[in-house]
Formats: sequence, structure tokens, C-alpha cells
Amino acid sequence: MTAGSDQSNSGARKRTIISVDAMGGDQGPPAVVSGIAKSAEKNPDIGFIVHGRASEIEPLIQKAGLAGRCEIRDMPEVVTMDAKPSIVMRNGKNTSMWSAVDAVKNGEAGAVVSCGNTGALMAVSMLRLRKIPGVDRPAIACLWPSRNKGGFNIMLDVGADIRADEKDLLQYALMGGSYARNGLDIKRPRIGLLNVGTEEHKGRAEIKAAHDLIAQAAPAAELDFVGFVEGGDIPSNRVDVIVTDGFTGNVALKTGEGTASLIRELLREAFNATPLSKFAALLALGSLKRLTKRIDPRRVNGGVFLGLNGTVVKSHGSADATGVSSAIKLAFRLAESGFTERLAARVASSGIAVQDDASVTNKNEQNA
Amino acid sequence: MTAGSDQSNSGARKRTIISVDAMGGDQGPPAVVSGIAKSAEKNPDIGFIVHGRASEIEPLIQKAGLAGRCEIRDMPEVVTMDAKPSIVMRNGKNTSMWSAVDAVKNGEAGAVVSCGNTGALMAVSMLRLRKIPGVDRPAIACLWPSRNKGGFNIMLDVGADIRADEKDLLQYALMGGSYARNGLDIKRPRIGLLNVGTEEHKGRAEIKAAHDLIAQAAPAAELDFVGFVEGGDIPSNRVDVIVTDGFTGNVALKTGEGTASLIRELLREAFNATPLSKFAALLALGSLKRLTKRIDPRRVNGGVFLGLNGTVVKSHGSADATGVSSAIKLAFRLAESGFTERLAARVASSGIAVQDDASVTNKNEQNA
Repeated sequence: MTAGSDQSNSGARKRTIISVDAMGGDQGPPAVVSGIAKSAEKNPDIGFIVHGRASEIEPLIQKAGLAGRCEIRDMPEVVTMDAKPSIVMRNGKNTSMWSAVDAVKNGEAGAVVSCGNTGALMAVSMLRLRKIPGVDRPAIACLWPSRNKGGFNIMLDVGADIRADEKDLLQYALMGGSYARNGLDIKRPRIGLLNVGTEEHKGRAEIKAAHDLIAQAAPAAELDFVGFVEGGDIPSNRVDVIVTDGFTGNVALKTGEGTASLIRELLREAFNATPLSKFAALLALGSLKRLTKRIDPRRVNGGVFLGLNGTVVKSHGSADATGVSSAIKLAFRLAESGFTERLAARVASSGIAVQDDASVTNKNEQNA
Repeated sequence: MTAGSDQSNSGARKRTIISVDAMGGDQGPPAVVSGIAKSAEKNPDIGFIVHGRASEIEPLIQKAGLAGRCEIRDMPEVVTMDAKPSIVMRNGKNTSMWSAVDAVKNGEAGAVVSCGNTGALMAVSMLRLRKIPGVDRPAIACLWPSRNKGGFNIMLDVGADIRADEKDLLQYALMGGSYARNGLDIKRPRIGLLNVGTEEHKGRAEIKAAHDLIAQAAPAAELDFVGFVEGGDIPSNRVDVIVTDGFTGNVALKTGEGTASLIRELLREAFNATPLSKFAALLALGSLKRLTKRIDPRRVNGGVFLGLNGTVVKSHGSADATGVSSAIKLAFRLAESGFTERLAARVASSGIAVQDDASVTNKNEQNA
């Protein structure tokens, strides 16, 4: 792909450009710019377009010595964390978020990263980038620490839409499979459909219908469908991609994060309990640090919006420099792989497998 | 209450009788009888009626020296883990599960414990014990390790029924509050309604409607309604009771268990990584044991069926002696407190608060 590449720097280096909304997020521009600095230092192949109030971000960029790596787009307005998506869609033209998404739309950047309001980011992304033909509902996919060799599973939808019918769930399976292939380098992703029990007679009607649709479409899409999985399988090595509706996925994601955070706290308390345990913690420091890193939510930061004509990475609102840098790394990887085009091709070719159902085709055409 | 008490032993001791299905569960009668032995040793005030194949369980009970504490009911048939609930309802009269539930129905025991097939246990319990007047859908409530002083929160429904409308969710709030009061000794339980966001404009229609119903009923039911909570709040000290439908609750429960189990594994690996970390683990053994105990799923074993004329505790199918003993302890506590009667009274009196809605009253009358 050529979109979002930059050969203007002298020499042969060809940078992949990432568009960054510097204003969203709870920690504001300083955390975002620190994240950019971290990524810039680690990876010389990234260039940045940074969107936000120049009076705030320019001094930060200067101070971090990033002037040569960042182009600044001065945008006067900011989307607040509690802004209603519908209002932002109508009046958001002068916000940093809108401008950041438009850089992808215009082909100036290969992907966009924002820590801002999720609902507003999805609304602006849908409005500006539009859905890929064949996709009814875009989804948000997250990475989940797992027992798999690569260390992560993918789950979607984790909150783009609170409802999903069987055809949406099929599309999530195809899109999640494509993300696993391009984002995690898994040649033949294993797909599981989240349910309350693995017995055939359990579960909601749309989930049973989705089971049959995915089973039918999987071989042509080069996916292995493992059937129903339960909540306990999300971090397992039975699957690579877990498919569910956005309500259930969002609850599961936050439940997992909440559980991990409670255990981290209790672990800290345990090691602070006695002088002996404090000493033990000191001895085991290296091992404990590796463990903490493995389950650190900042390392798996970055929900990817799937189903749009362009790659959008939503960073946690509370992300610090490490979190922002992880999200940028993910955006870079997806931009490099030509992920958007590959996903579109996959959905288009799999559309053939289900196009004998006229209602799908019509619905897609209306929405495309 | 007098049901399930036993004064036949010489002396003044009045035992609370717990009915135990010895045949369900993955580990079979030996694990269940070991669990009974653990509980019998710790608590002299429990007597048992044990249901199952006498040829299998009698030798175990003799060997454990429990003959004086256990009455055996010889039942030839066993409900398998994959049995269909509808089949068990029709043909299950000679199973240990049926007999165990009937001991509560007949007033011989104060509560029943089974490790068997959840769907079948719910079906048999509904058939034999019947729903409390005013309850449409019984629910399964679980305990969740939390930051609260007592160490646990309650979540319901975690799998009795995959759907719940706003009136069901209201009933779950009332029943969960009653369970918190009687099971966890919380005078004024705080109730949260699980949703994907705390903003007013998010979530499904039935959840928004339930929000208003619970807010209206809470003061008369002596509950504090804290409004919407998210997955991350389940282990928090913001709430005591989390209300949700059985599909979402089951996914959340298993996701939490799966996450905790992954972290336990990684922790074990971390401490086995180097000789130094092994030594450190040895030093911190006491603290680590306390932590492990705190998040040990066997300690929070026991889903309670709420909304029936009798207390039913569902132990994990994979429960070992420690797990079975935890479930028996919970059953004992609820039997002692006269929980069933208190919950029925609470639902009945709260019925007044919503009876201006004729549809509720009619539906309840049909189902009672």
C-alpha cells in the first residue's frame, strides 16, 4: 500500500505515517506525546501527524525533540469524554478527533490512534471512512492475554454495538479471522462463538443460527471453527478469536480487567504483609515483573475498529505513555500489513458464500 | 424455623439437617462424602441425609465414621452431567437428585446441596419446590471475591435463564438483596444493575426500564440502588449485589474464573522460573497461601437458587472435598437463618410497591 507513506525525508527511508489525536484521553496531550516519543524512539519507520491545539502540543513535541518526526494539525476543538456521539457527528468538524480520522480518509496516514470517547470515535469513523461493502455493523476487537503461543487472543465485538444478529456474528467471525491473520500472524485462525454452554440445546436463537452460518462459511474463509466456547475459554489456547455481541463482549472485557486488577492488588498486599514476604518479593522481582508485564492491560491497549475503510485504533481513555505507545505499535503493524484492503477482500469473497441469502445482500447494499 | 431440625440425638443438641445428593459431580461419591466429613468435623450442629446408591455411599460413610451423623436414602438412579432437564423432570423420580430435593420439600431438611447437572437440578427444584408467589423466574446467585469488607459480592442471575425482562431484573434485585442480608449479614445491601456504560443513553431497553423499576422499589425494600455498574465493578466495593440476565451473568462468571485461573498459572510459572524465585516463594509461602485462599474458587463454591420454596445450593460439578464442604457451610447458614421464609416475605411485601402495574400482578398470579 502507498497510503500514509512518506518519502519526503532525505535518504531512502520510507516511513509509515500514523495519525494521532492528541487531545482525547484522561491524561491529556502530555501522555499522548510521551507515547509518541516512546514509539518514535523504538521504531524509526514511523512518522506522525498529530492533531490538537498547537499551543498545547507544539511545546511538548519540541521538548521531546520530535519536531522532525511530527507534523502538527492545529485544531481548536476537543471531543470531551461525555460528549454525545450524535452531537459530535453534527458539529465535530473542528475537533482533533475528526481531523485525525480524516488524515486516514485522505490517504495521508495508514492508521489513526485516539484515546478519546469511544462512541464519538466510532460515529466519526463510520461517517468519514464508511463501512466496507458487505459489512452491516462494524465491531471493536480487543486483544486478551491468553495461553496461546503468541500470548494473546482476539475478542470482538467489545462494545461498538450492543446488539448483533446471526449475520453480524458471521461478519465478526470473518473480520476477527482477518485481524488474527494480519495483526497476530496466525495463518489459520481458530474461531469460537461465545455461549453459556457447549451443549447444543443451550443459548439464544441468534447464536444457534450464527453457529450454522459460521460453520458453513469457515472453510472458504480459511478459518477453523471450533464451535461454542464459554467465558472460561476466552484466555485459553482452544481458540484465537472469540465472537460475541457488543454487550456481552464489553461486560466480559471489563470483568476480566476487573478480576486481574483485584488479583494484582491482593498480590501486592500479600508481598507487603510481613518483612519476610517483602524480602521474598525483592528476590522474585524479575519473575514477578515478567508476570506483571504479561497481564499488564497497558500492553494490550488498543481496540481496533473492524469493518471500515481505514484502520482506527482506540486506546484506553486512561492510557499513559506505555499504553499510547502500544496502541501506536498496533496501528503501525496493521498499516504496514495493508490490513484494511485484506479485510475488505476477505469479506467480499466470503460474501459469495452467503449471497444465496438475498436478505443479506440487500441489507449490505443499503448500508454500504 | 423447625423444618429440617433433628432432636432425635440424645442430649439437648438440635441439629440442622442438610440434604446431600451424593451422586452428582465429576468426582463422584468419594469427594462428596469427604466434603460431608470436613463439614461434620467443623460444625457439630449439622446432620445429613445422604442420597444415592447405598452400596457405594454406605462404605464411604462407615469408613469416615459418619454413621451417627448421616441418614442414607438408597436411590438406584443417577442424573448424568449431560442429561436433558426435560427428560429428568419426566423420568427422574428414582434419582438421588430428586430424592435430595424432596427432603427439603417434605420438611426433613433445611436445605439441599448437589454437585449435579445444573439444568436438571433447576428443573427438578422448580417442579418439586415450586416458585415463591410473586417470582416469575428463579435465579442462580453466586459469590464473587471482592474488595468489600466481607470479601464477597453477590451476582445474579448466573445461568438459571438466558433471558430476563425488566420485571425479572427487579425481582433479582429484591432476591439478591435478601440473600445479601441473610447470607452475608449486610443490613442494607447496595444493588447495582450491570450495563455496558454508566451513561444514561447506553444499554438495552429492558435494562433502562429495570433501572427505573429498581430505583422505585429500593427504598421500601431497604436497599440502596447505586444504578448502573460495569463489568469492572463486579469485584469492587461500590456494590454488594450485581443484577443481570443469566446469559451475561454466566459469561461474566466464567470469564472471571478463567482470568483468575490464568493468573494463578502464570504466578506458579513465575515462581518456578529460577532457583532464586523458588526460594522467594518459600519465604513468602504464608502470604501467598492467604492470597490463593482468597481467590480460591473452591471457597466461593455454591450457587444458590433463589425464588423457590426451599433453599437449593448448587456446588460446582468439579468440586473436591473443600468445595463440597463450602457449599454445605453456605446451605447450613441459609437454613439456620430461615432464608426461604424471609425472602418470600420480602418479595411479597415488595409486590405491593409494584402492584400498581397490573401486568406484573397478573403475570405473577399465573405463575405462582
